[in-house]
Amino acid sequence: MSKKFAVVLSGSGVYDGAEIHEATLSLLAIDKQGAKYQCFAPDIEQHHVINHITGDEMSETRNVLVESARIARGNIKPLSDFKAVDYDILLFPGGFGAAKNLSSLAFKGADCSVDPEVEKAIIDMVEHKKPIGALCIAPAVMTCVLKGAMVTIGSDDSTIGTIKAMGGTHQIKAHGEITIDEKYKLVTTPCYMLDSTISQIAEGAENVVETLLEL
Amino acid sequence: MSKKFAVVLSGSGVYDGAEIHEATLSLLAIDKQGAKYQCFAPDIEQHHVINHITGDEMSETRNVLVESARIARGNIKPLSDFKAVDYDILLFPGGFGAAKNLSSLAFKGADCSVDPEVEKAIIDMVEHKKPIGALCIAPAVMTCVLKGAMVTIGSDDSTIGTIKAMGGTHQIKAHGEITIDEKYKLVTTPCYMLDSTISQIAEGAENVVETLLEL
Repeated sequence: MSKKFAVVLSGSGVYDGAEIHEATLSLLAIDKQGAKYQCFAPDIEQHHVINHITGDEMSETRNVLVESARIARGNIKPLSDFKAVDYDILLFPGGFGAAKNLSSLAFKGADCSVDPEVEKAIIDMVEHKKPIGALCIAPAVMTCVLKGAMVTIGSDDSTIGTIKAMGGTHQIKAHGEITIDEKYKLVTTPCYMLDSTISQIAEGAENVVETLLEL
Repeated sequence: MSKKFAVVLSGSGVYDGAEIHEATLSLLAIDKQGAKYQCFAPDIEQHHVINHITGDEMSETRNVLVESARIARGNIKPLSDFKAVDYDILLFPGGFGAAKNLSSLAFKGADCSVDPEVEKAIIDMVEHKKPIGALCIAPAVMTCVLKGAMVTIGSDDSTIGTIKAMGGTHQIKAHGEITIDEKYKLVTTPCYMLDSTISQIAEGAENVVETLLEL
């Protein structure tokens, strides 16, 4: 039986949603390693919409689930439908969407809150002793929910400070390297939290997916 | 010296823009094979915006260049800046954006027109005897510009009929297989014009990029 991943997206685009390369290369890694995936996203408004050329905020609103469907080619479910019993592994690609839509990490740092459906999905997986993966900035969101979790986001001092302020432990890691928290069965890697090539993102996603399948 | 690809995007999302997996996996294939890339897109309004869950048209407008920047992580140039002399290879991922924004193929079939900047980029590359790659539906757009070109879009009868009506030649191909038009140095593959896994898209993109680097 193929293992089934639930992949939680947070929009479509690094500055206001899921990072597209990390999300796509996670799906590729899952498929290449013989597992299955189903994409999910919360049915909520994005915190804001960013012009990805200028970095300016645009005067419009977009929905996280609807935009995430662009990455999922329409095959996506609202996160409210997620049940831990139906999946073997939960995976969060990165992008600012994790810190702006799935949580308020980008704005409130260590005082952030996490979307209730996201929080419930994480806690349900831990209660079922099922593994969770997180890329890029998403590991910091995990430490907001999973008290004392050990993660990596690479080597960014400011984010490491935030993780420690939330009670988390951080390991400095390079391209493609992973941190495993055995207690929570949590696997993390830096991806674009380091200045990376797209091949290095593929390597990080592959290593996380491979390790999650072994846990 | 690494060869330099110019990758032309048409938005961000299969139903109204560039197909995200094909675009991302093209960039991955280029990087893995030791070449460089620069993304381009025309600075024009999208034909329309499609809700990727329902398939319905949304009452908003989006700009092809601005949305393409989501895939390019902001590192993108307007197609008006493209000069064939500066690049070794031109590559078009697929998605309906190729047939709705880069051309009117989706609406006018064999009577379609092609965006003037797209047409100029293609013709300039051919005049410089430099290779062009196209994935998914984009090969049909090539036959609109390059009279008599031989391409593959897989095996879809309706699209093959349109290609033939434009004077093109079509080869039926399976997942990951390519067609090479030696005269135009044009390399094409079906990608999501066939019902494909994401690993099959990666294979098609890799085979096209590898062949383009050899031509």
